[in-house]
Amino acid sequence: MAFNADISGNNAVPETPMERLYSLISEDMEAVERLLVERAASPVSTIPDMSSYIISAGGKRLRPMITLAAAKAAGGRIGQPAHCLAAAVEFIHTATLLHDDVVDESELRRGKLAAKKVWGNSASILVGDFLFARAFTLMVETHSMRILDILSNASCVIAEGEVRQLAALGQAGLPLDEYMAIVEAKTAALFEAAARAGSLTNTPEGDESAALGEYGRRLGRAFQLVDDALDYGGLTDKLGKSVGDDFREGKLTLPVLYARERGGPEAQKFWDRALNVSTQTEDDLDIAIEQIRVTGAVEASLDTARREAEMAKDALARLPKSDCADALADIADFCVDRAY
Amino acid sequence: MAFNADISGNNAVPETPMERLYSLISEDMEAVERLLVERAASPVSTIPDMSSYIISAGGKRLRPMITLAAAKAAGGRIGQPAHCLAAAVEFIHTATLLHDDVVDESELRRGKLAAKKVWGNSASILVGDFLFARAFTLMVETHSMRILDILSNASCVIAEGEVRQLAALGQAGLPLDEYMAIVEAKTAALFEAAARAGSLTNTPEGDESAALGEYGRRLGRAFQLVDDALDYGGLTDKLGKSVGDDFREGKLTLPVLYARERGGPEAQKFWDRALNVSTQTEDDLDIAIEQIRVTGAVEASLDTARREAEMAKDALARLPKSDCADALADIADFCVDRAY
Repeated sequence: MAFNADISGNNAVPETPMERLYSLISEDMEAVERLLVERAASPVSTIPDMSSYIISAGGKRLRPMITLAAAKAAGGRIGQPAHCLAAAVEFIHTATLLHDDVVDESELRRGKLAAKKVWGNSASILVGDFLFARAFTLMVETHSMRILDILSNASCVIAEGEVRQLAALGQAGLPLDEYMAIVEAKTAALFEAAARAGSLTNTPEGDESAALGEYGRRLGRAFQLVDDALDYGGLTDKLGKSVGDDFREGKLTLPVLYARERGGPEAQKFWDRALNVSTQTEDDLDIAIEQIRVTGAVEASLDTARREAEMAKDALARLPKSDCADALADIADFCVDRAY
Repeated sequence: MAFNADISGNNAVPETPMERLYSLISEDMEAVERLLVERAASPVSTIPDMSSYIISAGGKRLRPMITLAAAKAAGGRIGQPAHCLAAAVEFIHTATLLHDDVVDESELRRGKLAAKKVWGNSASILVGDFLFARAFTLMVETHSMRILDILSNASCVIAEGEVRQLAALGQAGLPLDEYMAIVEAKTAALFEAAARAGSLTNTPEGDESAALGEYGRRLGRAFQLVDDALDYGGLTDKLGKSVGDDFREGKLTLPVLYARERGGPEAQKFWDRALNVSTQTEDDLDIAIEQIRVTGAVEASLDTARREAEMAKDALARLPKSDCADALADIADFCVDRAY
């Protein structure tokens, strides 16, 4: 079965860090792809239809690739437990996307209509529930209670982070550490769990699994902060992500925190009003983008992301040298470079 | 900590089958209640607030009581694994209630405002996700991979049943066996898993766990069919459940299937139009209730429920005699009797 062509590169020499990582684990990723199709099968056709709509389209498979690469970097072969775990991680991610789309009232996801616009909110909620449950049946197949422990706890942390983010909507004055706690929960927890649990399919718990968990956690933080910056256009607009989605939803992100902090009392008043969707006006996005620009808030956010990526690589340096560890290090850089 | 008074009965002599069952496992149920509070704790206050709103109010704790009683009926003491499992089962049930409320667009739940009317749809979705994830962390504490296997598969079946029900909305002509498959999935699967997995905390898999699983499955079917009948007023209206919720949502239930089948071509036309919410008119509920009455559809539904309850008791007869097995048998009768 074909993996999405922009990553596998098929016959081409791997060029990007994503392609190079993929080339090291391509057969295993094919096994994971088969699991993603097989385990979303159901006589209730909405389930495979929605699953394939959201899973097969546009996803970079970053989380399952990290799961497998962590298994390999921890030593030895990747086996069936790692395949099941990687598919489970992708299903958890997919379930959160389906639920996020309903919560965020977003219309588009990766440039396509959000699944809920095609099948409705109810189907998005329930198919999300199905995929989340299916993730746990896949984890049972790893036969590792410790893996179930890690992933079930991470799932709690993710949901808790999403609720915390919901409560923080419109609160432009949220302290930085509270915002970073949201990032840690809603995004970094799954990367951390994927890398840590991935390593445990191949090695007992210890320094290596801790290093890989730390790598995942730092990578996840960098990944989210870059996403935050891209919502305000990043440093170019080549990626075509629609700018201002977070702003229109009143979502607090790192560029907003920096712009508000650096912009003085007038800017603070602006952000406090404009990030509240009930008092936001149509012209506010242009003002926001200009405020972000003059305060250098995107650059500052990317600097923070870069520091997280560096710490991700530092964690990898605690592992034995391997192609997979090198490829994971390049992924950390790539996650930040995509904003330039 | 006080259990809701209508079941525990405190100092009173147990009178109803629910009270008698409770009296056999009261200390263990108190341990479960403590877990339900402890494990819904979170610094994000929406989570414990919503959880306690929905968990502490009005729920009969039928599923955790069956979990514990199954453990005891399978022999010996109830221990910490059974407590964790019982709390997990209640969390799964609570998560499905939170998501169902959003899906069904219902305003009330057990006579109170639905949680989503207080906290909003987004919080209902995300807190449901949290409780579902928390259920799995509790199951990890049973240290039984087989229990995780049973409950994760049941969770898939439940979600699949909910999606199937969604696809069947407005389809008055759904074949009976397809409707029973929905009942089996959305309701009976969790009762079955609770009873089967409950027994496995005390005994290896075998005839007893199979009998208890069969009991749960039949009880769950009876329970749902009685609920279906109560939505059209049951045989009295003493229970105060608001009549016609299912009808207004275009939800196919057993009384509708029977009334449509028995009412002749005119009735068939009526149900096909009226169960479609886009062509339903204000007077239709009165006509529907009259159609249900003249065709004896509630009585027929309750007869079907009664047969399921009898089969539930037959399954229990395969167990060694015990107070808990007797109490479970009485619960099967009680589930049907509540409609009279």
